[in-house]
Amino acid sequence: MINSSSERLVSKLREWISTAPTGAQLPSTRQLVADYELSPVTVQKALRTLITQGIIESRPGIGTFVRSIPVTRPNDYGWQTAALGATRNHLPQVHPSQRVLPNDVIALHSGYPDRELLPQRLVKSAFARVARTESVLLRTEPAGLPELQAWFASELNEHLLPGLSAPTARDVVILPGSQSGLGSIFRALVGEGEPMLIESPTYWGAIMAAAQVGVSLVPVPTGPNGPDTDELDRALERTGARAFYAHPNFANPTGAQWSPLVSERVLEIVKARGAFLIEDDWAKDFGISTESSPMAARDDTGHVVYLRSLTKSVSPAVRVAGLIARGPARDRILADNQAQSMYVSGPLQAVALDVVTQPGWGTHLRSLRQQLTNRRDQLINALHRHVPEAHLQSVPPGGLNLWVQLPDGTNLRQLEQDCETRKLAIAAGGSWFPAEESGQFLRLNYSGPNPGAFDEGARILGEALRSQYG
Amino acid sequence: MINSSSERLVSKLREWISTAPTGAQLPSTRQLVADYELSPVTVQKALRTLITQGIIESRPGIGTFVRSIPVTRPNDYGWQTAALGATRNHLPQVHPSQRVLPNDVIALHSGYPDRELLPQRLVKSAFARVARTESVLLRTEPAGLPELQAWFASELNEHLLPGLSAPTARDVVILPGSQSGLGSIFRALVGEGEPMLIESPTYWGAIMAAAQVGVSLVPVPTGPNGPDTDELDRALERTGARAFYAHPNFANPTGAQWSPLVSERVLEIVKARGAFLIEDDWAKDFGISTESSPMAARDDTGHVVYLRSLTKSVSPAVRVAGLIARGPARDRILADNQAQSMYVSGPLQAVALDVVTQPGWGTHLRSLRQQLTNRRDQLINALHRHVPEAHLQSVPPGGLNLWVQLPDGTNLRQLEQDCETRKLAIAAGGSWFPAEESGQFLRLNYSGPNPGAFDEGARILGEALRSQYG
Repeated sequence: MINSSSERLVSKLREWISTAPTGAQLPSTRQLVADYELSPVTVQKALRTLITQGIIESRPGIGTFVRSIPVTRPNDYGWQTAALGATRNHLPQVHPSQRVLPNDVIALHSGYPDRELLPQRLVKSAFARVARTESVLLRTEPAGLPELQAWFASELNEHLLPGLSAPTARDVVILPGSQSGLGSIFRALVGEGEPMLIESPTYWGAIMAAAQVGVSLVPVPTGPNGPDTDELDRALERTGARAFYAHPNFANPTGAQWSPLVSERVLEIVKARGAFLIEDDWAKDFGISTESSPMAARDDTGHVVYLRSLTKSVSPAVRVAGLIARGPARDRILADNQAQSMYVSGPLQAVALDVVTQPGWGTHLRSLRQQLTNRRDQLINALHRHVPEAHLQSVPPGGLNLWVQLPDGTNLRQLEQDCETRKLAIAAGGSWFPAEESGQFLRLNYSGPNPGAFDEGARILGEALRSQYG
Repeated sequence: MINSSSERLVSKLREWISTAPTGAQLPSTRQLVADYELSPVTVQKALRTLITQGIIESRPGIGTFVRSIPVTRPNDYGWQTAALGATRNHLPQVHPSQRVLPNDVIALHSGYPDRELLPQRLVKSAFARVARTESVLLRTEPAGLPELQAWFASELNEHLLPGLSAPTARDVVILPGSQSGLGSIFRALVGEGEPMLIESPTYWGAIMAAAQVGVSLVPVPTGPNGPDTDELDRALERTGARAFYAHPNFANPTGAQWSPLVSERVLEIVKARGAFLIEDDWAKDFGISTESSPMAARDDTGHVVYLRSLTKSVSPAVRVAGLIARGPARDRILADNQAQSMYVSGPLQAVALDVVTQPGWGTHLRSLRQQLTNRRDQLINALHRHVPEAHLQSVPPGGLNLWVQLPDGTNLRQLEQDCETRKLAIAAGGSWFPAEESGQFLRLNYSGPNPGAFDEGARILGEALRSQYG
């Protein structure tokens, strides 16, 4: 990522500065020109960059110094308080699970699989191939690359129940990641101030997207076999909501998969109530003991709107997702996403298509399943050994996480802090609840780096937990 | 973009089908296996793809045929009418200026520069370099790559008025394109149902983003020297609006640049009224007779929120923009954009940074200026010659477009159609007005493909126009 000679000098000087005391004087421009064999223009440019970054300061006529205190006078942005008004929704600045932590921390907090679980070789060769194509200079259609649309449709069609009409490439919209899709779906199908049912617990990113749109969330309790369907029906009737957001397969955070009976019943209910089921098949590629069985493959009446991301299974650098929706719903969502992002970068779409159509993709998915099985079981065993207080309602048949309940009265915030002091990052369950938490939960990700440290992580967790009970 | 052998077969069969009559029978699978030396699995996969695409149909036991009529039974999505309700805002399905047209059409309608105006060599080598880095497997921080943040800050600092404190890398947020930035800025600083001032005419994408957010637009008339500042002040007072969206440099569509006097006055007004100036510096790299002179470089009080896209000047495949905002406004916008898109693909950010830090970037910008000068003047001359009825208020000092007024009573919709029949694509001015049009305008883009056809394009336009007056 660093290519120009001035960027290289910036990086060398930063290294030097990191070991220099505050206030230390940098070598003169002339000296740097001689030392690094660069032009004065290049050296000046590097110094300007470091000044802009607030790392060094120039005292004219004297020299350049490692900054001691912030030199800019403090600005008064107080007037913005009135102009901005109260916050209209509660969006976190950066969600805790998004933090990138130092390597020596045992990271069970994140939602992204470690790179050793990614198809690294396929992604690299796809980028190299796509870099040589004209796609790097071209704009794409708002709905996406036709070949990638067709791939998403054909993937769903592999699960299609006999007798149903198949979704076509035209029913697919390519999105710049599923987060962008959630916003567009909620705006297009629900809208500000309108009610939407949502599983509880569920993905914090969906709760955040709903908050951004201003959707009014109606939580429906969900368990190892899926949501409480009586409650679902009552809530649709009572609120008049026309949409239900859910993870029928390998839910985030619980890993649960809906039973065939629940699946059937949910479909009956949304049809009877004239509502949409918004199916977020985020873990399509993360089946462990079963396969994902999309609800969208059981319906051709346009009641199921289907979202599948490739960011987690191909690469976090490939922000590409596919939406499948039929009827006017699809057009509404496409129009909204165009207003939000115009179109998706062609090379990223081409990389995604390249990876998932290589013969190596199937091989990768098979090896991934084996790795996830081992990691899940390793973490479960470690918890059994070191945290007997942690209750796992059921062994998840897929996904990337364990959702464990701790004894009532556990102070989760304290626990998070105590663990982090001991170099273990965990995620308190609160953000996965659209309303109050139904208990004290942790989400523990078993797809992070270094599964060899799971046992040590569980030991730290157990210790920190028991320190609360003195 | 086409890599697997089944994808290659799909593309070959599509070629064959394009010349085959409807209903023609395809060779048998066995025949295709022999002809193309592929495995039966690969051939079957290709055929399934074509079936999914609705191009061929399989009649079991008989064979595979080029489709005549849609084979899926028509689905009834009528129930969605009630579930979706009336549209909440008016978003175009695909804006006319976004259409990708056949090569034989003279294209003056689009908003994107032709690839011959892009730094093609730099973009290709940047993609090739970035493809070899680990960035293709990594997630980035929500605010973006620190080096790219620093570059956006240093670019603005080159224009900074003496005595002002400089924005730092921390004030910069990297966005997945400026469209996504507009939505986030409008939501974070204005909000649904709240008023926002906007130049009229202005960029249709901003009008669309405002419609999506539900912002209530208050048009302020603008001319060759900038907006009517008395009207601006009155409108802020009257509506209580706290934001004004504008293009101080090389406005889309007019190409106008605010005079120093107007710039000074606008800044005084927004400060006195406690409002934000949202500066969309979309044409930073498209100066012709002058340079872009950002308003954000005249202010360190957080009143100017600055947006600069690289999509038009680097490559339409590189969906990357930089936002510079100070104070809590920056945090609000970042939180909103995270809720909307999480983070921007690292490789795209790395490509953008690579291109703009190459020595060749400066050379490219100088040659681009010369090309834009020639193209602008060529189109102006062609209009003088063939369309004397077209009035150009002033020669734009930068940007990519001419904004010409036609005689009152011109039927623009008819004109667009008549031109398109004669293989000329133009853009009627209506979409650039937040409310009613103040006259009959056309936006003509001089950065499209084949400037050699400008004269012929103007000839067609003149003919079609005069045919309306019999």
